[in-house]
Amino acid sequence: MNGAESLIGTLTRGGVTVCFMNPGTSEIHFVAALDRVPAMRGIPCLFEGVASGAADGYARMTGKPACTLLHLGPGLTNALANLHNACRARVPLINIVGDHARFHRHYETPLASDIATLARPHSAWLRSAESAAEVGRDCAEAIAAARAAPGGIATLILPADSAWSDGGAIADVPPIPAAPLPDEARIAHAAGLMTRRGHVGLVLGTGLTVGGPLIIAGQIAAKTGAKLLAPFAFTRIERGAGRPPMERIAYVTDQAIEQLSGYDALILLNASPPVAFFGHPRKPSVLTAEKTEVFTLSAPQEDGAGALAALAERLHAGDATPALQPQARPQLPTGEITLNGLAAVVGALLPESAIVIDESITSGRGMMAATAGAPPHDWLVNTGGSIGIGMPLAVGAAVACPERPVLCLEADGSGMYTLQALWTAARENLRITTVIFANRAYAILKGELVSAGENPGPKALDMLEIGRPDIDWVALASGMGVSATKAATLEDFARDLARGFASCSPTLIEIVV
Amino acid sequence: MNGAESLIGTLTRGGVTVCFMNPGTSEIHFVAALDRVPAMRGIPCLFEGVASGAADGYARMTGKPACTLLHLGPGLTNALANLHNACRARVPLINIVGDHARFHRHYETPLASDIATLARPHSAWLRSAESAAEVGRDCAEAIAAARAAPGGIATLILPADSAWSDGGAIADVPPIPAAPLPDEARIAHAAGLMTRRGHVGLVLGTGLTVGGPLIIAGQIAAKTGAKLLAPFAFTRIERGAGRPPMERIAYVTDQAIEQLSGYDALILLNASPPVAFFGHPRKPSVLTAEKTEVFTLSAPQEDGAGALAALAERLHAGDATPALQPQARPQLPTGEITLNGLAAVVGALLPESAIVIDESITSGRGMMAATAGAPPHDWLVNTGGSIGIGMPLAVGAAVACPERPVLCLEADGSGMYTLQALWTAARENLRITTVIFANRAYAILKGELVSAGENPGPKALDMLEIGRPDIDWVALASGMGVSATKAATLEDFARDLARGFASCSPTLIEIVV
Repeated sequence: MNGAESLIGTLTRGGVTVCFMNPGTSEIHFVAALDRVPAMRGIPCLFEGVASGAADGYARMTGKPACTLLHLGPGLTNALANLHNACRARVPLINIVGDHARFHRHYETPLASDIATLARPHSAWLRSAESAAEVGRDCAEAIAAARAAPGGIATLILPADSAWSDGGAIADVPPIPAAPLPDEARIAHAAGLMTRRGHVGLVLGTGLTVGGPLIIAGQIAAKTGAKLLAPFAFTRIERGAGRPPMERIAYVTDQAIEQLSGYDALILLNASPPVAFFGHPRKPSVLTAEKTEVFTLSAPQEDGAGALAALAERLHAGDATPALQPQARPQLPTGEITLNGLAAVVGALLPESAIVIDESITSGRGMMAATAGAPPHDWLVNTGGSIGIGMPLAVGAAVACPERPVLCLEADGSGMYTLQALWTAARENLRITTVIFANRAYAILKGELVSAGENPGPKALDMLEIGRPDIDWVALASGMGVSATKAATLEDFARDLARGFASCSPTLIEIVV
Repeated sequence: MNGAESLIGTLTRGGVTVCFMNPGTSEIHFVAALDRVPAMRGIPCLFEGVASGAADGYARMTGKPACTLLHLGPGLTNALANLHNACRARVPLINIVGDHARFHRHYETPLASDIATLARPHSAWLRSAESAAEVGRDCAEAIAAARAAPGGIATLILPADSAWSDGGAIADVPPIPAAPLPDEARIAHAAGLMTRRGHVGLVLGTGLTVGGPLIIAGQIAAKTGAKLLAPFAFTRIERGAGRPPMERIAYVTDQAIEQLSGYDALILLNASPPVAFFGHPRKPSVLTAEKTEVFTLSAPQEDGAGALAALAERLHAGDATPALQPQARPQLPTGEITLNGLAAVVGALLPESAIVIDESITSGRGMMAATAGAPPHDWLVNTGGSIGIGMPLAVGAAVACPERPVLCLEADGSGMYTLQALWTAARENLRITTVIFANRAYAILKGELVSAGENPGPKALDMLEIGRPDIDWVALASGMGVSATKAATLEDFARDLARGFASCSPTLIEIVV
């Protein structure tokens, strides 16, 4: 057994059965070994940012890691922007980066690259497998590291000779240590805040906005009158009719400050203190008021679900009935395209168990409100501010959940970053409906120009226009094998969206807004 | 004057007048300042890899740096793959990366990123401008560092508050130290090799394959019988009728070993010793024979042009007449598409002073032979093995030389990496004819599978296919505003190519090969 075979064998034994890949010569033995380990599914991507974003989406929906396969330093760097997002999403992910054979590494070759330095900032675990015999064991450790709470990126560098040499051995994943529970004093302090303080918010981080923890949080809210909040950049929320409603902290600094101004206390569970996305010359970085006590009940590497359960127990919230979102859809609107109208169409038509990927930036700000009472669904957003994650996330989510319809709400500017994802969606015949909001500008930046106190001139404004020439998304999608239409009215949009949800293949709808 | 204004003022005073950019909020004051410094041209790119590749192309054609403008760590990482190539091309380039305001950096925000660590591997110079007052001086030093021999990437990190605060001052670029000349003993040794040894090759690195140095190298060759060689991954070659002919060292390891086997000595000028692109289980990394003396006359940071001149003087080659490539075009072929036929069409039609960007990988291997006797032109290739540089390089070359026709020979797999470059070409109305060789596969990797001794199965081969679904490049180009056609015969190709060369706007020709 060569190192590559031991690697894929260890991955599949450890539950890693999907590889989003863009291999090159140094990874060719991994590719060749795919035929000898049937359990591993290889999914080619035409750009590495698609691979890393898809692995993130897969992990968000399954809770378990996929792996990437990347070609030396350049392949890694192309993946980094979405690894940055995955890092912030706190998902498990195995990042496999091929390297030159060890005997070849010290030559001055075109592809010589300092992979370890480039990978370190986003890797919770990082190692180069320095012989075929070590590959399996290193991979097993990588899986354990990626799955350790709260979930992280484990980067395994694979020199080509470690892949092609004999002597590989499949290894078992070592035990994954349980996340520690916050101590009693912290639970007690949080409970005290909730009973003594007037207006309290629970900010729920990764892993706590789904399933059992969300229900428990809803019980605590019902018992204490606390409000459930999600960070603006959340990983995944289960929402819709029948689920405890949450409020998302706003992106716009002034709005977020206003939103959080009334709280006497905010209790953070696996979430960071609310701060502005960007610093501003005349605005504070911290979004909470001075009077607000911000208390971290559980840090990201701690057991937030356990902390919630312990808090509920201490508050005797176990028999409380959480307030659940009632079912309520907007009327299906008609007429001219407006942002509110588009949101209402989505709210009226979103099918049960849909997975919504939202990178619609300025155009989609009404989407969450319009879908609050839609049938139960999941909502995933950009966690790290690195645009170009939407369509890759959709690929990963659709691979993870082939039976569920995926709706990808995508801004044109962000979409152009990783449009190659459409090809993978077509190739794998994924059930994704992509909606492109074509405002033909980096509209958010126009707002920032004004907010920054600048009086923008024509050159500045021209840098933020992406409508000269207009981008034709129907042509782009068709060019990659995705069936696409352009919606000129809300009726068009409703018709195309319904068709997309009903389709088993990927579709795309462009809307000029 | 704020820091952003002092930055643009210092850039333009230092001769940096083009900025390939994809800004975000933290760079918005740079964008706003563009209207107050008319000499700076901003060119928006829809993906940062386009910006960095374009800056490389601009530098290759002008010898002077352009700058990029990138959005924090994620923007930088998207640019890194083509910065890797630029680093290997040894071109000057100012890489400007916005960062959070300093007071905002220590918060846990979505876009917090370790920019310095990510930039270090490719940066010859790296600094964060920690106040508005320092921005101008730091920028001036960056320009000097980028322009110091042999040319490199200077990364200036620009915290948002250093950009928006008052107190900026435009600075003058400090004197750039001259590259040191190799000492007399080395010149003498090289001259001795050339007179005593039988078969000698001069391997010419960056800067020596154009202009005066190339002529001098040709004189030395004429005087001594030495052969002129270019590394496989060269930065730019002036070639065609009337220029000293050079031979490119082959990509395929066995071919390169055979090609270099007869040399008694190789003299390297600003070039690295020839080694294989990748290591191989049963092939050597070093391409030269044991009998061949490999002598470095000038290292990349040394004065290679001066070394060539000194060598010519010592050899009394100054009055030698270099052998020049005679004009000779292939007959314009007709009929079915073949790789040789396509190369012959290019050879028959390439206009004088064309700039050819060649990232055609396996499909274009006959192109250099077929154009050897075409009217004088420039040839640029991928220097770092990071695919996706072709179309961005073409953008940069066309911005640098608006009067010259640019021909971009692009493989479909590589082209998909940075296809967003087509939009910038359309927006800036650049004179680029792009030819896509659509073999619908990572064909080079299929060869590597066999060369690696693997017996590929269906899953492995399927990972290297990019033709399921077929990519329609005419649709993709049209979707970004570039006029495109599909050529089904050599006559079609000849017609479309001639039309492209005659056009003042970008065009694209897809050929299924």
